[in-house]
Amino acid sequence: MALTFHLDGTHKAARAGRMVVRGITVPTPMFMPVGTNGTVKALLPEELEELGYNLILGNTYHLHLRPGDQLVHKLGGLHRFMNWKGLILTDSGGFQVFSLAKLNKITEEGAKFQSHLDGSSHLLTPELAIGIQENLGSDIMMVLDECLPIPSPREQVAASVDLTTRWAERCLKARTSKANLFAIVQGADYSELRERSAKDLSSLGFDGYAIGGLSVGESKDILSEVCHLTTPLLPEDKPRYLMGVGEPEDLLEAIGAGIDLFDCVLPTRNARNGGLFTRDGQISIKQAKYKEDGGPIDAECGCSVCAHYSRAYLRHLYLSNEILASRLNSYHNLFFFRDLMALCREAILQGRYDSFKFDFLERYLAGSEV
Amino acid sequence: MALTFHLDGTHKAARAGRMVVRGITVPTPMFMPVGTNGTVKALLPEELEELGYNLILGNTYHLHLRPGDQLVHKLGGLHRFMNWKGLILTDSGGFQVFSLAKLNKITEEGAKFQSHLDGSSHLLTPELAIGIQENLGSDIMMVLDECLPIPSPREQVAASVDLTTRWAERCLKARTSKANLFAIVQGADYSELRERSAKDLSSLGFDGYAIGGLSVGESKDILSEVCHLTTPLLPEDKPRYLMGVGEPEDLLEAIGAGIDLFDCVLPTRNARNGGLFTRDGQISIKQAKYKEDGGPIDAECGCSVCAHYSRAYLRHLYLSNEILASRLNSYHNLFFFRDLMALCREAILQGRYDSFKFDFLERYLAGSEV
Repeated sequence: MALTFHLDGTHKAARAGRMVVRGITVPTPMFMPVGTNGTVKALLPEELEELGYNLILGNTYHLHLRPGDQLVHKLGGLHRFMNWKGLILTDSGGFQVFSLAKLNKITEEGAKFQSHLDGSSHLLTPELAIGIQENLGSDIMMVLDECLPIPSPREQVAASVDLTTRWAERCLKARTSKANLFAIVQGADYSELRERSAKDLSSLGFDGYAIGGLSVGESKDILSEVCHLTTPLLPEDKPRYLMGVGEPEDLLEAIGAGIDLFDCVLPTRNARNGGLFTRDGQISIKQAKYKEDGGPIDAECGCSVCAHYSRAYLRHLYLSNEILASRLNSYHNLFFFRDLMALCREAILQGRYDSFKFDFLERYLAGSEV
Repeated sequence: MALTFHLDGTHKAARAGRMVVRGITVPTPMFMPVGTNGTVKALLPEELEELGYNLILGNTYHLHLRPGDQLVHKLGGLHRFMNWKGLILTDSGGFQVFSLAKLNKITEEGAKFQSHLDGSSHLLTPELAIGIQENLGSDIMMVLDECLPIPSPREQVAASVDLTTRWAERCLKARTSKANLFAIVQGADYSELRERSAKDLSSLGFDGYAIGGLSVGESKDILSEVCHLTTPLLPEDKPRYLMGVGEPEDLLEAIGAGIDLFDCVLPTRNARNGGLFTRDGQISIKQAKYKEDGGPIDAECGCSVCAHYSRAYLRHLYLSNEILASRLNSYHNLFFFRDLMALCREAILQGRYDSFKFDFLERYLAGSEV
């Protein structure tokens, strides 16, 4: 299970690497589709493979509550349960406890919360977060961390960063499997707290490092600053993962700051709401101007949806509430994200990442409808 | 486009045939998946092909109202619009006018109705029904017919049968393309009216004949009697299509009476509601007893869903309202129906249809949960 990470090339801070786990090689930078309930919404595992993904994210919080990690374990683990041959990174459940559940109290022991499904009470501790992820059979586990809003008072963030470090240590100790474990740097928008978090966690020796506490409504400047500040403090030979970030412009910024991995519901969630990514920005397929549009979503896209279906047909499916709308839209959007990662990697290896980023964004940001 | 129909074998009244249109051969008996809005709900055309279907049904009523048959025509026809290489049979829209829309009035001219989508007023005439189907680029069109409930007064049914015959003649005259046209035998549960309808329509010379006005809540005895009564009155060298019937026991009964084609939303609609067809009857995947069930839907099924996914996983997807539940369930159910048609055909060719039907139903009806 041991994770290896090899750098194939860099351009300034941007990195092109290869992460290998269980003999499966993930080229980086890479975006991970999110499979909340044991399925990347609307898509089959075979389609994810076809799209070039071999690493997805699974949600500990959701799977713990339903169907239950013990049931998943009993049925052979999450890979077998959902018929996924690739790698699975699981989050710790912490972010959902803070964002989705009714959070009751944070103590040294853990986070008390009530399920968003049935209101039942739960206590998520670092040890339980690891236990659940081990039951799921995760390839890469995440530590339990506390995630605060931006802005939050400095005193509170400082205490939270130290709690997150203590929880990270407890996660390391709680691990009984050979699964990999990533730590999560916190510290909101306080540079010295981000530094403290990065250094403290690095000294503990994890298999990879994430930047957490972003994508919570902060400005794009903060996202960029935190990434640029944090990555130099992390071990060069371990993957770096920016959690929950997915807007193409943010991915490009973060890749430029040395981030290797991403996850976000954006491509699949927007797909279900009719938002489609193109080289000329995101379009909203429900718009009347696509009513008679016989062209593809993106004339330069190489995906099978763009090869076979018109905007007019996709608009019709969307307006008719057809399941196929979600399928085709999700497929296209995940193709776009996979393609974007491949383009970034190539540009880094060819030493032209800055100009690639500039050109891509100039066109992308000029056209967005959404 | 000319339709040919060849009988490969019979067993009593049951027929194993081959219907050929545009060089595409449809083995019969055959079930047609329903693609109401230009998509067989939740599935891709490629998946339908993989399942062994090369003939689907499209709904004139729905496509006329949204996105509009003129738009579909402008974009190259329904095959191209939905990327379907197989054959398309379209209904006339009549059944939906009687069942889904607010029907205002039937006159000699046609049926006045209000759209279920926006309440707008429309008049569906035989000529318009053909015009719409020609715009869609249908391979097999259906005549506009009047569909009455069972029971209805004899006088009313008699007048309706004659109106349906006059409308059928107008449809024949209205046809400007080489698309095939099937007539629809009506007559509710009055044997002499069914006879009159069958004889009158047969004398007009259609490319195939349907039995309509069933699957409207009548008893199974009536379904069987009407089929047994009607099929001997229809030309032997043309396909016979029982409209809207889909319960496996009804398919088997009708095949025994000499029916060749069927359509029904049952396999796909039930799939979306968690109803799954097995050799031991239909099961409801939401039931608690499947919570930890690691086995497939049907251990004897050869489909990819049964090969890769457990009942526990499918139950989890269903309870989580995941789109993948509808996809996997629809795929399995359509495999079951395709497989059932192949088993029937084989049994007819081997002269053992009666015993096949008996054995299948004995097991199927004993186990049904739904």
